[in-house]
Amino acid sequence: MRPQIVLFGDSITEQSYRSGGWGAALADTYSRKADIVNRGFGGYNTRWALFLLHHLFPLGSATPPVAVTVFFGANDAALLGRTSERQHVPVDEYKENLRRMVQHLKECCSTMFIVLITSPPVDEEGRKEYARALYGEKAMKLPERTNEIAGLYAEKCVELARELDLPSINLWSKMQETDGWQKKFLRDGLHLTEDGNAVVYQEVFRVFSEAWLPASKMPYDFPHHSEIDPENPGKAFQQQCLGV
Amino acid sequence: MRPQIVLFGDSITEQSYRSGGWGAALADTYSRKADIVNRGFGGYNTRWALFLLHHLFPLGSATPPVAVTVFFGANDAALLGRTSERQHVPVDEYKENLRRMVQHLKECCSTMFIVLITSPPVDEEGRKEYARALYGEKAMKLPERTNEIAGLYAEKCVELARELDLPSINLWSKMQETDGWQKKFLRDGLHLTEDGNAVVYQEVFRVFSEAWLPASKMPYDFPHHSEIDPENPGKAFQQQCLGV
Repeated sequence: MRPQIVLFGDSITEQSYRSGGWGAALADTYSRKADIVNRGFGGYNTRWALFLLHHLFPLGSATPPVAVTVFFGANDAALLGRTSERQHVPVDEYKENLRRMVQHLKECCSTMFIVLITSPPVDEEGRKEYARALYGEKAMKLPERTNEIAGLYAEKCVELARELDLPSINLWSKMQETDGWQKKFLRDGLHLTEDGNAVVYQEVFRVFSEAWLPASKMPYDFPHHSEIDPENPGKAFQQQCLGV
Repeated sequence: MRPQIVLFGDSITEQSYRSGGWGAALADTYSRKADIVNRGFGGYNTRWALFLLHHLFPLGSATPPVAVTVFFGANDAALLGRTSERQHVPVDEYKENLRRMVQHLKECCSTMFIVLITSPPVDEEGRKEYARALYGEKAMKLPERTNEIAGLYAEKCVELARELDLPSINLWSKMQETDGWQKKFLRDGLHLTEDGNAVVYQEVFRVFSEAWLPASKMPYDFPHHSEIDPENPGKAFQQQCLGV
């Protein structure tokens, strides 16, 4: 009965139920109104995520999600010739993969509300520190992602959203508006701190509320407890729960 | 494809996706393995929750939840003749209502793993402070819940679990083992602080892991990214995603 909002993405989505996470915050906001379904796949790029499309969003489903956030790019933007090159996807293919995702989602349900989210900026110094902490002296000296290249992917994502007339969140730009974004929003140069999660939550909440359906306008799935008459509780449930 | 674990309860379940909440922490633990579905209904007692049973857990469902936490009592234990009396349910009825819930869940799926959770202890001083903050001088001088009465409900809950051979979590006892539980675990004498949420999470995690299925033993729903061959990504998806 409760509509579903799916968060589709990589590790930044998968980890969004950690303490202070943006997924959990959305779930709390839509509490009793919609289910937030986490479909984050750590390490996945858009090329690999395409294999999941028909499984996560089967055509002909009687209850497709009402909204989906599509949040990829952090792994696609890994550089060739560096430690994470296996995840690399060329930027034009990244854009076309996103397009295929949107086409598929629209085929599932033409009224589905789709939001494209760019990957966050990259703090190269933070990535290096992280690599040194993991691998010590063996850590590669050259970063496996750069902020500049991540910016090109973000641009393509926003460009596609414009072409398809979809809302988008340019996290790469948004976060860099704040001084000290490197440590304030990113805990290892790439993944989000609680403050970083708060930015994603606020942006998704804003886009949902402005362009779609604010949680406050959605009905509770069953009567609010204050509407239940303790002398005759069945009455409040009658409409929604006939036959019980 | 991903199995569902349903959290069925009152506001302490409904609010479990707030920052540091036990529901979000479980969702993070079972990430990529099971979906944690929040079916918390703030203000509900067991009598009202019975009206929801067939809707939340329809008989004959092809995909019933694999596990359910049943976490009621905080509202049932509201005292007659006090400000929350409309929520009051006599303690023997509370026990029978819980029994009907379990019977229904077992009818849905005889192998469903069901855990009964008692309500937390009540800090009467905390409740009074909360009432004064809300209603000022108009606040009733007598608490609408007492810890002693909450303890009787907890006893009945644990008693029923024993009769039905189900695991239970006696939160009422467990929390009182810690000095200063009143402020450490409860933010308004009844609802949980982050520390209180951590206790619920740890207990549910322990019961799930000991008596049922630890997250670590459950398979990922799709290949881990490290298992994907970048030269031939289709191979890793072949078994699970035939036909894509």
